[in-house]
Amino acid sequence: MKILDGKKLSQEIKVELKNEVLELKKKGIVPGLAVIIVGNDNASEIYVKNKKRACEEIGIYSEIHKLEEKISQDELLVLIEKLNMDEKVHGILVQLPLPMHIDKEKIILAIDPKKDVDCFHPENIGKVFLGQEIFPPCTPAGILEILKRSEIEIVGKNVVIVGRSNIVGKPLALMMINEGATVTVCNSKTENLKEKCLGADILVSAVGHAGLITKDMIKQGAVVIDVGINRNSEGKLTGDVDFPEVSRVSSAITPVPGGVGPMTIAELLKNTVKSVRDFTDK
Amino acid sequence: MKILDGKKLSQEIKVELKNEVLELKKKGIVPGLAVIIVGNDNASEIYVKNKKRACEEIGIYSEIHKLEEKISQDELLVLIEKLNMDEKVHGILVQLPLPMHIDKEKIILAIDPKKDVDCFHPENIGKVFLGQEIFPPCTPAGILEILKRSEIEIVGKNVVIVGRSNIVGKPLALMMINEGATVTVCNSKTENLKEKCLGADILVSAVGHAGLITKDMIKQGAVVIDVGINRNSEGKLTGDVDFPEVSRVSSAITPVPGGVGPMTIAELLKNTVKSVRDFTDK
Repeated sequence: MKILDGKKLSQEIKVELKNEVLELKKKGIVPGLAVIIVGNDNASEIYVKNKKRACEEIGIYSEIHKLEEKISQDELLVLIEKLNMDEKVHGILVQLPLPMHIDKEKIILAIDPKKDVDCFHPENIGKVFLGQEIFPPCTPAGILEILKRSEIEIVGKNVVIVGRSNIVGKPLALMMINEGATVTVCNSKTENLKEKCLGADILVSAVGHAGLITKDMIKQGAVVIDVGINRNSEGKLTGDVDFPEVSRVSSAITPVPGGVGPMTIAELLKNTVKSVRDFTDK
Repeated sequence: MKILDGKKLSQEIKVELKNEVLELKKKGIVPGLAVIIVGNDNASEIYVKNKKRACEEIGIYSEIHKLEEKISQDELLVLIEKLNMDEKVHGILVQLPLPMHIDKEKIILAIDPKKDVDCFHPENIGKVFLGQEIFPPCTPAGILEILKRSEIEIVGKNVVIVGRSNIVGKPLALMMINEGATVTVCNSKTENLKEKCLGADILVSAVGHAGLITKDMIKQGAVVIDVGINRNSEGKLTGDVDFPEVSRVSSAITPVPGGVGPMTIAELLKNTVKSVRDFTDK
């Protein structure tokens, strides 16, 4: 049984990116990421801090725009327009969730698709669908990268995805279909989830429900990817998968923390560096 | 066993649209569709002729731009730009395939997304993904319409789609996921296709391979949707499904011809009328 060590794999990616950033700097170009955070959501603040630290680690310039909860939608749109024009900024990320009085869709549509390193803009999602992605969405891209760097085959495999969110389930389904997998997407209405999961060569759970995936749902030798981030009663981080038990039947499994999470950040950095290339090619 | 009569259902839609077009005409607005066809592909010419006839049937103005095979990409782009600006034209459709020397992606990107009634533009596909579609892609929308008008439930059902094309398999998967189905997408690399199909409450075949779906692949009482259009050795139109045998175990099935085909055209008309509303709302 192999632990798919996202922390270690993300370090590999970061080393590659660090070298790429050094090369860019020799040409006088510094990749830049602008992160916008509105209000005082604790989890969001931690995510943003982690992203900033990761940028520093590999030499990407980053700026955090921390805005007050009561900022108006128009003020936020003005800031995005400014960042769209800003030559120091190659990637723009709006940390979700946003306060209720702000129309999330409008904000996402305002980001220049060429700087949309989170891949939230419909045009970029459409390109993922077509297999022409500029910026693959970070979490699904991180999952594919774990599999590829661990030499786990995807073509012709049965991939079962539990969860159908816009950020993980649906884009991952498209990317897996494009890779040639047979893909099943389950949701809370799925009848006989256990049977579906037992059919998986690669099982991905992205629900946010601790203990959802148990040992009896796993085919002997399956690969298990846990995207869930939950806190148990003792305040400890845990995924959707019963790791101690499931890891006894799986051939490979991601831990939480230290699995998909660090890979998601590595893919964000990768998209930001890629964005520089797209700008300087022009 | 019920035959899902796409011809009849499409007539229902056309009657509804005809009334809507009459209402628009009272306000002095005539919905308009421009169809571009390049070269002399026989099948394409038949499709275009059918679309024109359907427009006439419900009172939509249509214009066919039949261009020579050797037209340059720039000339085609100039025509599309003209049609984007033309107030008589609410929908623009470029009949595929295009000749090899023309970059299909560039052409599709040139169509104003607000007039992209075929839903090929990445921005419109992205909106399908998000469940915010302006123009649902015609064939998947036609399939959903058949199911809804036949009162066949989708939520929580096992939908198996054979084929992963950009026009049918993938967009249908997204729309079925958004509807709350458990969706499996199979392709030519799928191991044990029979077993997958046997799990389907609703089976959709969109491959283009006559006789692919046989009776032993169908669960008793399943709903079978046949998107295949093939010609058998006698030149007769036939789908992917062995209709005489499969119809003995299915609870409902679409014939070929007269199933999904007419519904696809009805959805194109619907999108064109919808496009008028989007323009006049502004």
